[in-house]
Amino acid sequence: MTAWDSIAARREGVPVLMPGHVWLAGAGPGDPGLLTLDALAGLQQADVIVHDALVDRRVLALAPKTARLEFAGKRGGKPSATQADITARLVALARAGQRVLRLKGGDPFVFGRGGEEAMALAAAGVCFRVIPGVTAGLAALAAAAIPATLRGINRALIFAAGHGAGEDFDWAPLARAGQPIVLYMVMHNLERIVASLLEADIAAQTPAAIIAWATTPKERILVSTLEELCDAARELRFEPPAIVVIGKIVSLRERLLGASESAGKDARR
Amino acid sequence: MTAWDSIAARREGVPVLMPGHVWLAGAGPGDPGLLTLDALAGLQQADVIVHDALVDRRVLALAPKTARLEFAGKRGGKPSATQADITARLVALARAGQRVLRLKGGDPFVFGRGGEEAMALAAAGVCFRVIPGVTAGLAALAAAAIPATLRGINRALIFAAGHGAGEDFDWAPLARAGQPIVLYMVMHNLERIVASLLEADIAAQTPAAIIAWATTPKERILVSTLEELCDAARELRFEPPAIVVIGKIVSLRERLLGASESAGKDARR
Repeated sequence: MTAWDSIAARREGVPVLMPGHVWLAGAGPGDPGLLTLDALAGLQQADVIVHDALVDRRVLALAPKTARLEFAGKRGGKPSATQADITARLVALARAGQRVLRLKGGDPFVFGRGGEEAMALAAAGVCFRVIPGVTAGLAALAAAAIPATLRGINRALIFAAGHGAGEDFDWAPLARAGQPIVLYMVMHNLERIVASLLEADIAAQTPAAIIAWATTPKERILVSTLEELCDAARELRFEPPAIVVIGKIVSLRERLLGASESAGKDARR
Repeated sequence: MTAWDSIAARREGVPVLMPGHVWLAGAGPGDPGLLTLDALAGLQQADVIVHDALVDRRVLALAPKTARLEFAGKRGGKPSATQADITARLVALARAGQRVLRLKGGDPFVFGRGGEEAMALAAAGVCFRVIPGVTAGLAALAAAAIPATLRGINRALIFAAGHGAGEDFDWAPLARAGQPIVLYMVMHNLERIVASLLEADIAAQTPAAIIAWATTPKERILVSTLEELCDAARELRFEPPAIVVIGKIVSLRERLLGASESAGKDARR
């Protein structure tokens, strides 16, 4: 029994996870406090929870012990499920009449292949519900006391994936948009992407930050400039999972940090 | 007594809203199921809840009756609080030792002036916590069964505000980024912005959608092309609040709609 056991039952208007259906839900960035009530309702109702590596243990701990947890992500040193394996498994579980929660870190539709899974479910005739979540990029900015937007500073915000199909991606048009860029899954390609952004004339002194393990006990924050970001990340051993943000908004952090009760402190060089 | 009264008390590790502190929290797009557990904890603990017009009544109904609700937003036909009034009020409430929840629609740092409020609090020496939320743009896409990202379709996603200081904003660099654009607060300037995007050579036949009142009982969805979007919106009387999304991802909706248990149906012309 967890302290949460009766919560779903107490809420009015809670959606019902039906046998044979799949909920594609965002688990948020890590902190269980950033889970949505609907995702919690899914945890409470599911027969089986198919989760990624980045779903926090504290979130999974909110499921009743009767729920079966299935890991379906990529993690160093263990055989990885392919995307085809995962979607086939979701379809098989649904067809077996299970109530399936597919739980993904952040928001399921933001760089998480949730769209592919939804299309595979639809093609197989399996009913699904999408439960959006707090996306890691916005959670990381909030955790670092960096406003995503501020009048007079930016009118737009660009989310981009640093990793994925098409490594020949042209970063110049995004760089030339002149707006802050929030990068997901970027650490393995950080040097190449930073070089591309500098080549596209983003100023070398543009403030930049890395927020690793945002909203978890392992959270670390590095504030630097675009030019020095890679050296600093190497020196301080910043590794995935991490969000990188590049733009003037990063410099606002200085004005907020002293009064913020939640923002993490900087890693020191 | 609401059905929620004891939830905050039952959760382990819940952050404590201290007298004299302000939590800047996102209320999500409307549906109380998309509220985070931390925002709910704020509703449960606050002495006073200072909320915007777009915070859903069903969310506010989760506060105990002892909490005082203060409206501090802009709404047609009523005198609007200025941003300076709002920040002064937050500071005054905190200095009076109140536990203050500043509740904003969506995510507090995304086009919601949460950054300005945080800076005013910091300048006044008032401690605050930022609680990110499910941003309206991502919630609207999920509600409409439009994946925000899909491999092979897009590698980035641009959020932009259609309204705000600087109406001479140059849309061409964003348009040329070649990635889907999600527009907030856009309905009053829709014709001008669509014209700018067409001038910047986004194809006239690019799929586009409007999601009004996403995740509320008033939700309506319009799917069209960039070229025809304004005429369709006028004919079907689409009004704020609404999210507009422009890009190939919109066409994926057709493949998902039949199997989605949550996605709203189209408004008909």
